[in-house]
Amino acid sequence: MSVLIKDAVIVSQDEKRRIFKGSIYIEDGIIKEISEKGLAIEADFKISGNGKVVLPGLINTHTHIPMTLFRGYGDDMALEDWLKKRIWPAEARLDRNAVKAGTDLGLLEMILSGTTCYADMYFFEDTIAERTKKAGLRGFLGFSFLDFGTPEYKREELFSRCEDFIKRWINEKLITPVIAPHSSYTCSPETLMKCSELSKKYNLIIHTHCSETQQEIYDVKNRYGVRPLEQFERTGILSNRTLLAHCGWITKGEVKKIAKVGASVSHCPVSNMKLATGGYMPLPELIDEGANVSIGTDGAASNNTLDMFESMKFTALLHKHHRWDPCVAKAQQVLDMATIGGAKALGIDGKIGSIEEGKVADIIVVDFKKAHLTPIHDVVSHLVYAVRSSDVVATIVNGKVLMIDRNVLTLKEDEVLEFAQKEALRITSD
Amino acid sequence: MSVLIKDAVIVSQDEKRRIFKGSIYIEDGIIKEISEKGLAIEADFKISGNGKVVLPGLINTHTHIPMTLFRGYGDDMALEDWLKKRIWPAEARLDRNAVKAGTDLGLLEMILSGTTCYADMYFFEDTIAERTKKAGLRGFLGFSFLDFGTPEYKREELFSRCEDFIKRWINEKLITPVIAPHSSYTCSPETLMKCSELSKKYNLIIHTHCSETQQEIYDVKNRYGVRPLEQFERTGILSNRTLLAHCGWITKGEVKKIAKVGASVSHCPVSNMKLATGGYMPLPELIDEGANVSIGTDGAASNNTLDMFESMKFTALLHKHHRWDPCVAKAQQVLDMATIGGAKALGIDGKIGSIEEGKVADIIVVDFKKAHLTPIHDVVSHLVYAVRSSDVVATIVNGKVLMIDRNVLTLKEDEVLEFAQKEALRITSD
Repeated sequence: MSVLIKDAVIVSQDEKRRIFKGSIYIEDGIIKEISEKGLAIEADFKISGNGKVVLPGLINTHTHIPMTLFRGYGDDMALEDWLKKRIWPAEARLDRNAVKAGTDLGLLEMILSGTTCYADMYFFEDTIAERTKKAGLRGFLGFSFLDFGTPEYKREELFSRCEDFIKRWINEKLITPVIAPHSSYTCSPETLMKCSELSKKYNLIIHTHCSETQQEIYDVKNRYGVRPLEQFERTGILSNRTLLAHCGWITKGEVKKIAKVGASVSHCPVSNMKLATGGYMPLPELIDEGANVSIGTDGAASNNTLDMFESMKFTALLHKHHRWDPCVAKAQQVLDMATIGGAKALGIDGKIGSIEEGKVADIIVVDFKKAHLTPIHDVVSHLVYAVRSSDVVATIVNGKVLMIDRNVLTLKEDEVLEFAQKEALRITSD
Repeated sequence: MSVLIKDAVIVSQDEKRRIFKGSIYIEDGIIKEISEKGLAIEADFKISGNGKVVLPGLINTHTHIPMTLFRGYGDDMALEDWLKKRIWPAEARLDRNAVKAGTDLGLLEMILSGTTCYADMYFFEDTIAERTKKAGLRGFLGFSFLDFGTPEYKREELFSRCEDFIKRWINEKLITPVIAPHSSYTCSPETLMKCSELSKKYNLIIHTHCSETQQEIYDVKNRYGVRPLEQFERTGILSNRTLLAHCGWITKGEVKKIAKVGASVSHCPVSNMKLATGGYMPLPELIDEGANVSIGTDGAASNNTLDMFESMKFTALLHKHHRWDPCVAKAQQVLDMATIGGAKALGIDGKIGSIEEGKVADIIVVDFKKAHLTPIHDVVSHLVYAVRSSDVVATIVNGKVLMIDRNVLTLKEDEVLEFAQKEALRITSD
């Protein structure tokens, strides 16, 4: 399949962060040619770039996709109440059907909102992988470890099941298996060490929660005498293949450690604010130390969307507000976090995250002919502060058009919505 | 003109906050009948409510509408730099044409995003009133006072010009004149006192900035020996007709004073966070004391949109985050601020702000058949945490349909966008 995007404004996110008018030719999944002069090539799929901005697809580095079924199911509640009365009872009823429904719903939402790649961690990850492959999104899918077992597997079978999962998906183009020990308070040191070995054996990303809440710090310290990051360090989890979600309660010393080892952070401002987990992810310090920071929405249960454009605006504004300084978290930095920063977090910044010849074509097109995007003084400012995800008019992954003019080509929208509503009510009703 | 909305979910925002399935019949601007059983009436305009949610139109209680021309013109800059290098030089070039362009752009954006009524304060307010009337929105339009004069009028002519403005618009249905002394640091005590007299004479709302920045507190205290709110009190500005924008730096004593006198606050979380004005508007304390709090976007120069749905989400999340408590700023409270709270701030809660028989029909319709609004566990949760303003499919003001299926009927979208782009470049280029 070949795709031609003609005469658009290209926000390349390349090394020089060049922005220019040009055309892009895509063939067999690869960006073959970018020209500022126009391209006289035929293609299977043509997209007019008139009034439009093209950028790398957004990369959501922390979510739990089937939890879209819990969107709006218990807001404004204390964290423990919410988990005990709503989320855990519903998760106990999870099965393959519910996961399929929630995954398709999340995929639909992501495709429609300009996300081309996501890092997940949940249960029934095989089902999530099958659905993701079918919908055509790029997924870094985390097989979850919890010491009390998961809704899918008993504790004692987790490692062998995980290895099966890895072998099943490791050679897929769109799917990459990920090792996902849930956290340092739900996984024993032995579990963490075995996860670390598995990650080394197959050279896979480890995706885990780190210092999301103050309680977690207390618990891990009480139990093991160290803070979560140190626990990850001494169990071999912490490396340049590690993706740490949240980091709302890390110290300045831990910032240096993360930067030094080359681990990545997934910042989830909307979820952190909504759950009121307190603390504050020290973005300026992480950037100053050279750490790689990306953005995640977290699950829709605590967001309540998977909207990366919204998460970009929250990222920028939260840090300005926290520091009483409008100059921190600049628009370009935040866009970097959501594109090339996400690619780096997943170890594939040589492949996606920017628009350059030879890279894989994970690309989105945004219509700028809108009242809320007029006038245009600064394209990057608009992408972070004014674009709504509904302005995305094309989503391309691996050179394949998944959505054009708000129509998703790989999922049947009506069926997905109906099935999700049905399954959501089934697993949440008494 | 008559309008019938058939079989929708109605979020009434009435005294009991009832939510029910029903139909609404509107005639001559008034909500004539609401029925849970369906209505067998013919109407000039029929809207199917299938899969849709109907709620009172959102009320934006603080903006500077022509500043949409400065959207994205200087972000991520220190406040003083931004004002001196960007905003003030551009404002010095303001004229009627630019204000017309910016106002039409803002009106278009508001109609498309479900805002039916707004409180403005800027210059060339006559032009703003003419355009607002033409577009069909409800405007509480503030004639601005600044001791160094405005881009429109010299200092010495402000009061007579304001009185002309009042007389010209006071009997209009959609337009209500408002007295807008800019602030306690840009208006002398004499100016404030004269504004207070004018407000009493015509029984008009006073709209002003109050305690937005820490610098403002210092300045007013140094110059007059009191804090801004006390300055308003002793110059007669503070009453139950006063709308105080921001209040990010008010004390607990000032919270009590605002509640006691019956003044209203316009909370602008997005602008406050983006400009990093610091401080924190004490929402839980204001609510506990019984003060009326509404929501404003502020101008698009510091937001960068006029999107009230987005501002609702920011309101809820900012306060949860600040208090480390997910139970503050509940969805229902935030929706109240954006609807009935806004109406109360403008002294017209007997007329708009809820959907009840006999009230004026300022109503919006939101399409809930969307991936990011599926499943539906809780309609109010979705309105605050998940709806995007692009989900609004009908905007009705005073019983007149201004927008249906994303088509604005009272403004020519293409012309508005083109004119705004042209005027924006004209007044910002060197």
